[in-house]
Amino acid sequence: MSDKFDYATREENYSKWYNDLVVKADLAENSAVRGCMVIKPYGYAIWEKMQQTLDTMFKDTGHVNAYFPLFIPKSFFSKEAAHVEGFAKECAVVTHYRLRNAEGGGIEVDPDAKLEEELIVRPTSETIIWNTYRGWVQSYRDLPILVNQWCNVVRWEMRTRLFLRTAEFLWQEGHTAHATSQEAVFEAEQMLDVYADFAENFLAIPVLKGIKTANERFAGALETYCIEAMMQDGKALQAGTSHFLGQNFAKAFDVKFTGKDGKQDYVWATSWGVSTRLMGALIMTHSDDKGLVLPPKLAPFQVVIVPIYKTDEEAERITEFAKRLTAEFKQAGISVKFDNRDTHKPGFKFAEHEYRGVPVRIAVGPRDLDNGTVEVARRDTLTKEVMNQGELVGNIKALLEEIQSNLYNRALKHREDNTCKVDTWDEFTAKLEEGGFIYAHWDGTPETEQKIKEMTKATIRCIPIGNAKEDGKCILTGNPSTQRVVFARAY
Amino acid sequence: MSDKFDYATREENYSKWYNDLVVKADLAENSAVRGCMVIKPYGYAIWEKMQQTLDTMFKDTGHVNAYFPLFIPKSFFSKEAAHVEGFAKECAVVTHYRLRNAEGGGIEVDPDAKLEEELIVRPTSETIIWNTYRGWVQSYRDLPILVNQWCNVVRWEMRTRLFLRTAEFLWQEGHTAHATSQEAVFEAEQMLDVYADFAENFLAIPVLKGIKTANERFAGALETYCIEAMMQDGKALQAGTSHFLGQNFAKAFDVKFTGKDGKQDYVWATSWGVSTRLMGALIMTHSDDKGLVLPPKLAPFQVVIVPIYKTDEEAERITEFAKRLTAEFKQAGISVKFDNRDTHKPGFKFAEHEYRGVPVRIAVGPRDLDNGTVEVARRDTLTKEVMNQGELVGNIKALLEEIQSNLYNRALKHREDNTCKVDTWDEFTAKLEEGGFIYAHWDGTPETEQKIKEMTKATIRCIPIGNAKEDGKCILTGNPSTQRVVFARAY
Repeated sequence: MSDKFDYATREENYSKWYNDLVVKADLAENSAVRGCMVIKPYGYAIWEKMQQTLDTMFKDTGHVNAYFPLFIPKSFFSKEAAHVEGFAKECAVVTHYRLRNAEGGGIEVDPDAKLEEELIVRPTSETIIWNTYRGWVQSYRDLPILVNQWCNVVRWEMRTRLFLRTAEFLWQEGHTAHATSQEAVFEAEQMLDVYADFAENFLAIPVLKGIKTANERFAGALETYCIEAMMQDGKALQAGTSHFLGQNFAKAFDVKFTGKDGKQDYVWATSWGVSTRLMGALIMTHSDDKGLVLPPKLAPFQVVIVPIYKTDEEAERITEFAKRLTAEFKQAGISVKFDNRDTHKPGFKFAEHEYRGVPVRIAVGPRDLDNGTVEVARRDTLTKEVMNQGELVGNIKALLEEIQSNLYNRALKHREDNTCKVDTWDEFTAKLEEGGFIYAHWDGTPETEQKIKEMTKATIRCIPIGNAKEDGKCILTGNPSTQRVVFARAY
Repeated sequence: MSDKFDYATREENYSKWYNDLVVKADLAENSAVRGCMVIKPYGYAIWEKMQQTLDTMFKDTGHVNAYFPLFIPKSFFSKEAAHVEGFAKECAVVTHYRLRNAEGGGIEVDPDAKLEEELIVRPTSETIIWNTYRGWVQSYRDLPILVNQWCNVVRWEMRTRLFLRTAEFLWQEGHTAHATSQEAVFEAEQMLDVYADFAENFLAIPVLKGIKTANERFAGALETYCIEAMMQDGKALQAGTSHFLGQNFAKAFDVKFTGKDGKQDYVWATSWGVSTRLMGALIMTHSDDKGLVLPPKLAPFQVVIVPIYKTDEEAERITEFAKRLTAEFKQAGISVKFDNRDTHKPGFKFAEHEYRGVPVRIAVGPRDLDNGTVEVARRDTLTKEVMNQGELVGNIKALLEEIQSNLYNRALKHREDNTCKVDTWDEFTAKLEEGGFIYAHWDGTPETEQKIKEMTKATIRCIPIGNAKEDGKCILTGNPSTQRVVFARAY
């Protein structure tokens, strides 16, 4: 076995385990540019599957894609008061547009090529998009606008971690415009449902759907909806958000429409997004001390076939069988890789595919051919069984479905095992150390929430949608509360 | 008919015709940021079709996608001498990473947040990618690397035109690494073939495959391959390039590998790219004075069905028929839109779909239902015919194929009609005024090429692959020449 697959266990060092995994499973690595990552082909193939799946879901709900500029004039950020106040000011700023040869070699920025107004590399695109929508909307006939954009954004984070928090990341941002408040709220809630559906049925990650408190709301939103997932270390990870923006951006950028009744009004807005952060959520939800574990629906290869042979004659027989099997799998919609590299031994290949999370590994040797069998190994349970070659395709198809639901159920059980209710401050701080979601009463004020955050690093992840009303007392202040909210430490 | 569809004709003002078309057909528009465009949903849908088609072609030839940082440290550009010399220095430069509240309102760049080394927004990614490949390659087992990236790039162009030349544009850039020179050359030529195949069979644009002269070569390449297309005004448009980079970038970034023989050598490289410029090529090749004309293989909707009715009862009958037809078309793999907007009249819809280049329009009124017919209009020829409802799907499918090849043949004929051979300087300058491709003798020196360019604005578009050898005299210097090369004025 190669050194390549040495790593920290989750128990030893969860954070190192994660970082090792991302790099050694060929998902991503740090680049020469501080905080910016390289997404490697294997990691990118998973992201592409996420993109394709989400893109289809967006189109099925009536959305179209478009593309808006990477750069935003600095002045645009000042136009929506809450947006500029609340939004991180850590941005990449373009000030010049030309380089020149430096005396003594190399190149330098040309001081004569200074921009009149600095440009900000988009941290999010509400401002440039709403500035554009002003030209697109005159009457109710031009509404709704249901647009999504796949792109890169930049937020100059000081402490970065691959996928979870990087200076540049990839995401999609939906920006919709509506004639009524109701329609916009419906849209924001619909997209939350799309995200939850995607997380649960493709990523196999159970999520809480909820709304954010005022403190945690997106800068410029009237309501922020979110899905929250629990990682294996008990910390929460916000996996997607959808915002009802009211008329704030329409007012800031003067986007009005004439209604059927001939009256003018400002347009109603939503925005919603998920990012390459989902890669981090996927990794931290399912993977184990042996490496990455991928749900079949997002695995670049669902099945790998590894031939085991000594002689050329054996190699030939197995190759013929494997190629036939590969064709049958593809026919059945199963993505499969026949790993016939002659540069590596089977042991290395087993370790590599295990580490890279391929859901099902099929090994075939000469004796298998004689017996009409293959050896099938499951990545999720790390178990092996001998299967007959007859009906193999159907059996593997069923196995992939079983793995997909097993991963979801395992993650759901983990979340349930690590969710509790507490009623006192002491219980709260004790449970926080164990990790997990804590349902507790809170007096509903931003001040209390802020104090709890400062004292414990725990935040209110969300107020779950359809939350049960229940009278109680705030765990910090003892003031009356009408419902429990979900606290956790978070990524 | 709405004012929306007023426009300049090609004859009146070709340049205005193009700009009007791009904006009024909802393809793209200028943004608030100088030189950066907004790609509107309809334009983006065409670009998505291009992406999907190319992406499949790249994967079928063994490539995978990855993602590299948007920013490149300034010093990287100095590492490959020809690259920094030859490459445009008009770049967006990031110098700061934070904004702060300004006294008296608004925000300003925080002078304390100056980067130690400026970052360049990528104009192309050879440098950052080869810096990354150093960590990926140790032995011949790690080769080849066949990676492609879909992303945005920025080149601070002074004079911009939608799609043709914009400060920010979208593209793909392939960057491959090989153990031998032969393999890299094979790759560069293979990707040229992929581009030519795509241009001819999807965009319906005939292209010349050729190599660039030293003057026109990519900065840092040993050989630049290109496909050149002719627009309706007779000007050339470079539609894609593929570069054999030799070991230049491997040497600049110290990327070595150990061969099977145990010896170390630098890695061989290619890069290749096409961009949203192809949208400009597509528009200028096929469109006419009535607006956009799209080849069926790239049209977001190949067929639009427009209902014509007066009464609710008629509307209901037609809707039922149209929905059934829509389902049948989809079943047959034909993309179709049933335009049942009640906010616009049929005449407006006809004009709009014509202007937006929908290949086939089907109109259905109550009399058609009684007669078992529909009215079918072709966008390419602007002709109409009555078709029976029986076998409509098959007939429309055949019609779409006919339109696709008609567009290609029309463009090919246009190119042939506007291609000539000249042997004297006077003929050359006279023919240049008419536009088109001119095959002429050139003495093979960069100096002569440069002089011709300065005198006439014509450049050598390429030396066609498989060019016939023929002795002759240079049109400018009279010096001996062994082959004709292709001159033209170009976008």
